[in-house]
Amino acid sequence: MNYVDLVAVLAVLQLVFFAILVGRARGLYGVEAPAVSGHEMFERAYRVQMNTVELMVIFLPSLFIAAKYWPQSYVAGVGAIYLVGRVLYWRSYSAAPASRAIGFALSMLPILALAIGAIVGILRGTAT
Amino acid sequence: MNYVDLVAVLAVLQLVFFAILVGRARGLYGVEAPAVSGHEMFERAYRVQMNTVELMVIFLPSLFIAAKYWPQSYVAGVGAIYLVGRVLYWRSYSAAPASRAIGFALSMLPILALAIGAIVGILRGTAT
Amino acid sequence: MNYVDLVAVLAVLQLVFFAILVGRARGLYGVEAPAVSGHEMFERAYRVQMNTVELMVIFLPSLFIAAKYWPQSYVAGVGAIYLVGRVLYWRSYSAAPASRAIGFALSMLPILALAIGAIVGILRGTAT
Repeated sequence: MNYVDLVAVLAVLQLVFFAILVGRARGLYGVEAPAVSGHEMFERAYRVQMNTVELMVIFLPSLFIAAKYWPQSYVAGVGAIYLVGRVLYWRSYSAAPASRAIGFALSMLPILALAIGAIVGILRGTAT
Repeated sequence: MNYVDLVAVLAVLQLVFFAILVGRARGLYGVEAPAVSGHEMFERAYRVQMNTVELMVIFLPSLFIAAKYWPQSYVAGVGAIYLVGRVLYWRSYSAAPASRAIGFALSMLPILALAIGAIVGILRGTAT
Repeated sequence: MNYVDLVAVLAVLQLVFFAILVGRARGLYGVEAPAVSGHEMFERAYRVQMNTVELMVIFLPSLFIAAKYWPQSYVAGVGAIYLVGRVLYWRSYSAAPASRAIGFALSMLPILALAIGAIVGILRGTAT
């Protein structure tokens, strides 16, 4: 089974889930489109989604490029930490935005590890 | 011809078009950078672009991963529905944000179909 | 060495750098999450990051699809212009948002060149 593809699709479905929470928060807190502010709880849900969009743009290319140079199981394992980091980020940001540091670190550090791994693989030229 | 690549590049050019509309709306409605609010019509154009950015992040990986496991013509066909859905979303959101549901559904459902198709393909391990 | 992959990872690290500047601007200008406005200098840093997120979503697919149809050195060279354009955009936007036009053009024109190159390659069907 291609675990790298699996991690990538799970990251996609995770972001769909965060987007659904934003839609739900629009109704719950009465924030009509096109507004994206007006109620603290809506803004928290929206920032979780937007922060995840910002990270997906760097996570997926790092994941797939790293997977060209390193064993699939390692790359997928590091990617799985990102998925857990995003869950922690969502739970902590929803409870209190100031407590988001650990979830953010567990999202960003795997991305940096994959990006640095990709750079090393590219420079060594050891495509698998 | 690689129809999956074609759908992906058309989605890119569609988003460029939405971004151009935002730049034009800045001038038309007098919303100077870095502000992204201040006039309802500008905010509608901006939300169409941002919503499309949010969806591109899940559409493109779903499209390309699904294309590793399923016939190109099916995958490209589902992707083409997304392109039509985005046009409807743009037209309806510009006219009245509350009428955006059908365009949104026709954007999101193809993405979910591709993501679920990708998961099924990964689990069956039937890469083409 | 795979220069196309290298350009892609450098674009990722560049966006990480812009994101770090936003985090730093939160502290410097006292803009607490989830707010994304409230101080002009914070908003400039945030808009540089967001604009780069918006462009990454069209840059990376254009880069990788173009690389399937054209020589790697050409594609990577055009991609490198994007990296320079983003540096100019960041410097000029931080100094004065109204001066961002050249940096933006040097980011967007390489993307359009890659996207159009990709379309031409797809239509000619000359995958390398």
